Amino acid sequence: MAVEVVYRSSRDLERLFMDKAEADRHDKMLELAELLTDVLQKAVPSLSEQQGEELGIFMAKNRDIFAKAFKNQPDALSELGKDEAAE
Amino acid sequence: MAVEVVYRSSRDLERLFMDKAEADRHDKMLELAELLTDVLQKAVPSLSEQQGEELGIFMAKNRDIFAKAFKNQPDALSELGKDEAAE
Repeated sequence: MAVEVVYRSSRDLERLFMDKAEADRHDKMLELAELLTDVLQKAVPSLSEQQGEELGIFMAKNRDIFAKAFKNQPDALSELGKDEAAE
Repeated sequence: MAVEVVYRSSRDLERLFMDKAEADRHDKMLELAELLTDVLQKAVPSLSEQQGEELGIFMAKNRDIFAKAFKNQPDALSELGKDEAAE
């Protein structure tokens, strides 16, 4: 038995990481997801809370692809099919 | 009376533009909106067709802000409140 250090995001207390950088990436992803959920729910008020959260998490997890698509490569979105299949 | 040139996107036959560059911007916006609608509906199947379209259009209209947010400035999303109010 030994004491060890684990890391977690204050936004998601259940998920523990051995690696601080990974915990930090998870926290950043959740931060973006929360902000996205918020603006999308304001823009489309008919969204349920769960739909809003699913959209935020999905987009935040794939932020690199969405960054490309919004910048100048809409076709980057076609990469998403593959990612999902791999998950 | 005279004949004049007007421009439109083949994705939206009702909206006519006097300026070709504006018609082109409108077409590009609609192209991105359609692709977004498609990937979001696949990711969150419970979305209605209308919700999917509203999300796509909203995000495509604000593509510069979303590009910043996904790249590395999540806080850019706070600009959206202002934009909507101005519309």
